[in-house]
Order: sequence, then structure tokens, then C-alpha cells
Amino acid sequence: MNLIEEFNAYRSQMNEKIMAEDNKVIKRFFNLDTNTYAEGALDIKTKEMIGLACSMVLRCDDCIKYHLGKSFEAGVSRKEVFEVFSIGMIIGGSIVIPHLRRAVEYWEELENQG
Amino acid sequence: MNLIEEFNAYRSQMNEKIMAEDNKVIKRFFNLDTNTYAEGALDIKTKEMIGLACSMVLRCDDCIKYHLGKSFEAGVSRKEVFEVFSIGMIIGGSIVIPHLRRAVEYWEELENQG
Amino acid sequence: MNLIEEFNAYRSQMNEKIMAEDNKVIKRFFNLDTNTYAEGALDIKTKEMIGLACSMVLRCDDCIKYHLGKSFEAGVSRKEVFEVFSIGMIIGGSIVIPHLRRAVEYWEELENQG
Amino acid sequence: MNLIEEFNAYRSQMNEKIMAEDNKVIKRFFNLDTNTYAEGALDIKTKEMIGLACSMVLRCDDCIKYHLGKSFEAGVSRKEVFEVFSIGMIIGGSIVIPHLRRAVEYWEELENQG
Amino acid sequence: MNLIEEFNAYRSQMNEKIMAEDNKVIKRFFNLDTNTYAEGALDIKTKEMIGLACSMVLRCDDCIKYHLGKSFEAGVSRKEVFEVFSIGMIIGGSIVIPHLRRAVEYWEELENQG
Amino acid sequence: MNLIEEFNAYRSQMNEKIMAEDNKVIKRFFNLDTNTYAEGALDIKTKEMIGLACSMVLRCDDCIKYHLGKSFEAGVSRKEVFEVFSIGMIIGGSIVIPHLRRAVEYWEELENQG
Repeated sequence: MNLIEEFNAYRSQMNEKIMAEDNKVIKRFFNLDTNTYAEGALDIKTKEMIGLACSMVLRCDDCIKYHLGKSFEAGVSRKEVFEVFSIGMIIGGSIVIPHLRRAVEYWEELENQG
Repeated sequence: MNLIEEFNAYRSQMNEKIMAEDNKVIKRFFNLDTNTYAEGALDIKTKEMIGLACSMVLRCDDCIKYHLGKSFEAGVSRKEVFEVFSIGMIIGGSIVIPHLRRAVEYWEELENQG
Repeated sequence: MNLIEEFNAYRSQMNEKIMAEDNKVIKRFFNLDTNTYAEGALDIKTKEMIGLACSMVLRCDDCIKYHLGKSFEAGVSRKEVFEVFSIGMIIGGSIVIPHLRRAVEYWEELENQG
Repeated sequence: MNLIEEFNAYRSQMNEKIMAEDNKVIKRFFNLDTNTYAEGALDIKTKEMIGLACSMVLRCDDCIKYHLGKSFEAGVSRKEVFEVFSIGMIIGGSIVIPHLRRAVEYWEELENQG
Repeated sequence: MNLIEEFNAYRSQMNEKIMAEDNKVIKRFFNLDTNTYAEGALDIKTKEMIGLACSMVLRCDDCIKYHLGKSFEAGVSRKEVFEVFSIGMIIGGSIVIPHLRRAVEYWEELENQG
Repeated sequence: MNLIEEFNAYRSQMNEKIMAEDNKVIKRFFNLDTNTYAEGALDIKTKEMIGLACSMVLRCDDCIKYHLGKSFEAGVSRKEVFEVFSIGMIIGGSIVIPHLRRAVEYWEELENQG
């Protein structure tokens, strides 16, 4: 199982458990989170790149993986994704670099699979 | 070895090494950390839920595991722990979600083992 | 105008502007945020203390003020609020101390006004 | 002096002092920081919105002000800037809200002055 | 009252209130915090520069001021303090810059007063 | 393959990929990052200890490993590294402890291999 399948499988399995639980705040937040990236005044591609950069500066590997997958689907190019990475790295500093390494690895799996 | 045993074994092994070292600041802090969650004006259950929520918003998986174990021992119910999760998620935002997934997995191991 | 009035006035004024804007994600999140602290499996007092501790470790002065006000209303005592402070400080470290100073100042205004 | 003038005046004054100092790492980083937002595979408007969202989730009021100014210049509309705010708030959680309030205040000054 | 007097006055006043409170965890932590920077295997100057850099990457203005004062007393030179700043900025990224501006302002007050 | 070899191998492999990419901001930042720790007004040993402490309070395991390796090469002693750990832990709080455990494990591998 590659990085992409592993990430998606665990994510789906646990999200199902969480949505099955009777906690309205969590369920509504999950829905709201999905709605946030829908087409609006900004298109999906722009929103996903914003989500990706925020995930980098907050150093959340799973969030990075999620938005890398969505960015790839939305047609972000390799040159563009590296510019997003560069903004995240300049804003967040050298502590972002270990996450950048893992992001590049994941992006290449997306390219190879795509 | 399940998640709980793995976490506890590594934690005990390394804590021993750290306490064996002649660094007074670190040793006193470890003691103080333990005292913080003792019964006082607030009961242990409340303190552990506070510790759990703080660990979630700071996105520290090992801290979450530790306070999940202590919360379980202190009698926190599944409904209650999900309310703690919901507060952590609303305060800390969607970057808390990957930690929520792992927290739910760990909590279920505690229930199954309990 | 004291600290409490100043905080509440600015908060109300800006929240009104934000709610008047036609952005559904933001409006729903504001509602959800309010619902999070409603009585549930956990009572309001416990939830507010959790919100307060999380605000401390995340070092958000305005969030601390908000939850201090709500905690005071919910009947949290001075001894209890200092125990919440102690947990926040041990988890978040010495960088929490400047926020602790301002929290104590605000708490005393709440006591004097209450 | 309004918020915008106050921010720009202090920023310019201190940047001058910092650039006058003979520290190559700091000077090069300042240059690099400027280059990061230049037109490339991504246009300036997109880069500024990314910079703005990152500043929100990292809760840096001065960084928010800077990128609000640049976003306004780059032609970001009110509807668009609120969508950027919504992404920052969902990713970063309710602790972003106090910064959102100040961001809205600053944006309105930009509109009134523009 | 200049920046230095203002900072020290508020800090002393609130620390007194906090130490007067009967909360052992907080009091012990305050003592421990002081002990941490005492001469040991590392000298005070090195420890204060470490404390300063950590305060910068965590973006705590009051902590920065405190360690700037102690670093100045310990004989840190202007060239040295700017090297500490440069490390903090590279590690923490451009979000550190607003804190760098205020740090430079405070340092110059220390030099002028010294 | 031990922890040290594993860390270095992945780091080198991904850094090569990143440097091969035609993104000037990222490449310049990588160079700048290296220059930051060169001998200057402060010696390399001091700079590496500062880098290590900052990595701890920001809770970046890979950054900690990197600066542990460099600190070891620069002649930092076991007593000294534990003092750096103690400062990081007091500033950053108990959430630093899981990273401290992994730091001690890595340091012991450096000692055993050295």
C-alpha cells in the first residue's frame, strides 16, 4: 500500500467512526469544513492552495497530504505547488523544511499515480 | 503489542533515563507536572479533561494518549470524552482533526481493554 | 471604561459587522462556537474551564478574557480558576506567564465588578 | 493617524534600522521575503491571499495587516477576502476570531481610504 | 515612563499578586523558572541567549523583553544579539519579523539607558 | 539502519530533489539556513545549542535530530545538552516532554556511535 492509499484508508475509516458518534458539534464542523473549499468568489484551485499553505505553516502532515491530493485534482502544476511551498517556508521558517520533504515525496506519488 | 502498551513502555523507559540524569530543573519539573493533576479545588476527572483538551489544541499525540488513559481511569464516559474533543476541535480548528482520529482509535483501545 | 467594558464593546461591534456579511461558513462557525459550550454530557462550568485552559496554552488574550467572563458567570471560584491557570502554565510553559499576568488582572476586575 | 498610517510608519522606521545593521542573514532574508510574493507561476493576487491566510492561522496581527494592504492593492474584493478569512478560521479554529475582528476593522479602513 | 520601566513595573506588580496566591504549582514553577537560568554547565550569557531565541520563535513579546534585559546585563553585544535574532528569524520565519522590530526598539532603549 | 542513518539518508535524498527543482526562493532559503549557523560573533557551538532549544520549543523532531547531530559534532557535552533541554522544557512546558524523550534516545545513539 503506497502513501496515498494508506492515508486515505485510515482517514475514511476513522471519519466514519467519528460521524457515527452522536456529537452534533463535531458532525457539523466536519460538514462546514467540506463546504469551506467549495467554489465561491474564489475557485477551488485557489482555495486548495490556501489550505495547503496554511497546513504547511501549521506543520500538520496529514492536512498537507489532504490538500496536496485536492490540489493535484484541481489541476495545480508542479511549478505552482513549489511556489506554494516557498511561501509556506518563508512564512513559517526552517521548521517547515521537514514537512516540505514529506510533501515533495507525497506530491511525487500523486504525479506517478495520476 | 497494542497502542497502549507501546506508548506506556517507551514512556516509562525514557522517563527512567531522564530521571537518572543529574539535572535538577528537569527532575523538579517532572514532579511538578505530576502534582498539577492531583485532587485540589478541582477533582482529578476535571483536571484530566482539561489536560486532554489542551493537548488536543497543541496537537501533541503523546500528550493526548497520556491524558486519554488518565481520563479513562478517572471515569470519563464516551459521551464526555467526545464533548472534550468537540471543544478542542472548535478552538483549534480543522488541523486538530488528524489528532482527533488518532485519539478516537486510542480511546477505543482503552474501552476494549478496560 | 474598564478592561471588561472595553473588551465587550469591541467584541460586540465587530461581531455584528462579521455576522452582517454574507459569508455562510463564518456565520455557521460562529453559531457552532456558541453551541459548543452549551450544557451537554458536561456542564457549562466544566466546559468554560476547558475553554479557558485551551485559550491559555494557545496564548490568546482575547479568548482568555472571554472564557474568564463566562467562567466567572458559571460560578468558578478564585481557587478553581488558579488551578486552571496552573494546568495551562505547566502544559504551555513559561511563555504562558505574560498571559497569566493579564488573566489575573482581568479576573480581579470581574471580582470587583461582580 | 489611522491604523494604516500607524502600521506603515512603525514598519518602515524599524525596517530601516534593521537593514542598516551589518547582519547578512537578516538582510538576505528580508530580500528573499520580498521576492517570494513576486509574480511567478502564481500571480501576485493569489500569493497575497495565501500570505494572508497563513498570517491568520499563525495569528500574527502585523502580518495580517501587511498582507491585507497588499491584497487590497492587488484587487482582492470584499467577498474574496471574507472567503480567505473563512478558510483561515476553519483551519485555525475559534482562536483566530479575535484576529478576524481586527482584520475586518483594518480592511474597512483600506476600503474607506482606497 | 519608557518601555523598560513600563514592562518591569507591570511584571513586578502582577508577579507579586500571583505569588501571594496560595497555589503551590504556580509558585514552584516560578521558582523553577528562575533556577533554569542560573550558572551551571552553561554560563548565564549562553542561557539567556537561548531563552531569547526561544521567546522569538514562540513570538512572545514580553518574554523577548525579559530575556533582552537579562542578555544586556550578562554582557551580550549588539553584534551577538543580532545573530541571536537571525537564528530566531530563520527558524521561525517571516512571522517573527514584527517581533524582531519590537525587539530592536527595546534593545536600543537598553543601550541608551545602560 | 539506526535512527541517525535513517534520518540522514531521508534528509539527503529529499534535499537533493528539492534543490534540483527550479525554485529560487526555496534554494536561497536553504543556503541562508546553512549560513545562519556559521561562525560569527557567536561560535558554532553556541549557535547549535540555540538552534536545538528553538527546535524543542517548536516541537520539531527532525529539527531536534539535526541540531543534536551538529551540537554533538561541535563538542556539546551531555551535561550541557541536558541544560539546553531543561531550558526548552521550562519555556515550552510539558508538551515538550515527548520530544525530550526522543531527543534523549537520539543523543544516546550519537554517544554510542561517536
